[in-house]
Amino acid sequence: MSQPSLLLLGLDLLGTSAFALNGALTALRAARLDLVGVLTLGAITALGGGIVRDVLLGAVPPATLQDWRYLVVATVGGLLAFAAGHRLARLATPILVLDALGLSLFAVTGAGKALELGLGPGQAVLLGGITAVGGGTLRDVLVAQVPTVLRSGLYAVPALLGAAVAVGAEVAGAGGAASAVLAAGTCLAVRLLGVRYGVDLPGPRGLPGD
Amino acid sequence: MSQPSLLLLGLDLLGTSAFALNGALTALRAARLDLVGVLTLGAITALGGGIVRDVLLGAVPPATLQDWRYLVVATVGGLLAFAAGHRLARLATPILVLDALGLSLFAVTGAGKALELGLGPGQAVLLGGITAVGGGTLRDVLVAQVPTVLRSGLYAVPALLGAAVAVGAEVAGAGGAASAVLAAGTCLAVRLLGVRYGVDLPGPRGLPGD
Amino acid sequence: MSQPSLLLLGLDLLGTSAFALNGALTALRAARLDLVGVLTLGAITALGGGIVRDVLLGAVPPATLQDWRYLVVATVGGLLAFAAGHRLARLATPILVLDALGLSLFAVTGAGKALELGLGPGQAVLLGGITAVGGGTLRDVLVAQVPTVLRSGLYAVPALLGAAVAVGAEVAGAGGAASAVLAAGTCLAVRLLGVRYGVDLPGPRGLPGD
Repeated sequence: MSQPSLLLLGLDLLGTSAFALNGALTALRAARLDLVGVLTLGAITALGGGIVRDVLLGAVPPATLQDWRYLVVATVGGLLAFAAGHRLARLATPILVLDALGLSLFAVTGAGKALELGLGPGQAVLLGGITAVGGGTLRDVLVAQVPTVLRSGLYAVPALLGAAVAVGAEVAGAGGAASAVLAAGTCLAVRLLGVRYGVDLPGPRGLPGD
Repeated sequence: MSQPSLLLLGLDLLGTSAFALNGALTALRAARLDLVGVLTLGAITALGGGIVRDVLLGAVPPATLQDWRYLVVATVGGLLAFAAGHRLARLATPILVLDALGLSLFAVTGAGKALELGLGPGQAVLLGGITAVGGGTLRDVLVAQVPTVLRSGLYAVPALLGAAVAVGAEVAGAGGAASAVLAAGTCLAVRLLGVRYGVDLPGPRGLPGD
Repeated sequence: MSQPSLLLLGLDLLGTSAFALNGALTALRAARLDLVGVLTLGAITALGGGIVRDVLLGAVPPATLQDWRYLVVATVGGLLAFAAGHRLARLATPILVLDALGLSLFAVTGAGKALELGLGPGQAVLLGGITAVGGGTLRDVLVAQVPTVLRSGLYAVPALLGAAVAVGAEVAGAGGAASAVLAAGTCLAVRLLGVRYGVDLPGPRGLPGD
């Protein structure tokens, strides 16, 4: 029991750092915030998904507020982004890749934590998806933009896919580091390939797109 | 005990489908989202109020995530709206009526669930109101609009009124299908008449309206 | 145990009234809402921080929904602001001072409630900060503005500072009315001095501010 928990913790902290960097860079680029604003948006992006997950699971106070490693990782990520921001802020690629990385890791850890707490496989996949998109959605709402999860078809889908691979492996008795990496890799690959090749999902018929 | 629960479930699923259609049509009209965006906004509109209610009541994981009927109804509603969207998206009336229907049903079920979990009548009315306006408020925040609950005086008021009728009937020992329909009908009638006849609540004195 | 609880309740109700007035005045000024909109935004500003705090602490249903004194205070505050709005709505100073007052009181009461429920000192400081900025952040998101907590460096910092003073005094065995007032006063002074003298925290290097 403690082995998968340790693995989840490691992946969760990695996802936290990716989202903290991403949120802080978003703050620098989209809203021109000062140091505290950058750190705050980084922390909300990094910790928001896990907080939503834990509140929905009834696992309160949320791990991300109880365990100081999360807060340290989120703060360090924000500081790094702030320090390097004048070089990175105009580059769209690192923001995008860090977001995809956070998405992938949180899809796996969210689904894993839901399984650990006794939810069924279907609900665990859903919780994984919510954990993955939660932090970025809070980030977008706070900088007054329509969230990526609504604008980009291939955002929720890879998250649910990654969570499904993780849950499938766990249910089949093949859980562990290898399948967690495979699940996160699936989400990451689908998300990045979707962005790279501009894969669009169908829009409404009879309405011109914009 | 299981009889009122069954009634609440039926009304809850009806409200879920109304809000799913409404949220998906809003996505088509306001934000021109793709299939996943439409389904996601439909699901958040449909399930958001119930999730907020269950989190505030400590009934986690929320019923809408645990019970697959909710998710199926929300998804089917979103798909129907997507398929018919080119005919419906420019019509304001179905969006408005579906929103009023979801509002009415969730006011009753939110208040009923709060009573079932042992809250007092006053708190149950308040919880009913929050359940009713919760999904639509999340919908509006996500498409970056000031929520209806703030802009339209006759939105929170009919919801609280419907919840009060439902709670009053239950407290008076006259709970059941008939009083639930009466309570939802009261909310629906007040909301739709308010919209139809443009009833406005008083605005601030000395400030020109806009 | 009941003595500190009573003190917390008093400060909490004072903070609630300050935020209710502030939220209602914001509604009058920023969004020109009608009576129900003004009362609703006042109530969300006033009760939002405490609701977020209680949900994160697992203390549900939240005190602000269970205890009618909160709702009465929030409603009366909103009504007062509505009645006096034509005189106050164009004045930025009362809005700012009431916001700083609510921030200060909620930082202290949020941290105090977290300590009472058994959280460690660090987490209590964090919870105090979240309680303090929660209501105003919901207010800003609902009127579609980037929240103060992101735009103004000296908003989260004084809240965390006030919470730290309160937690420090409690841990040192010097808790009580005097130290609670000192903690709230510290937050209030830092916030208002920061605004008065336009203290800005460092912005990102190499990017022109706006």
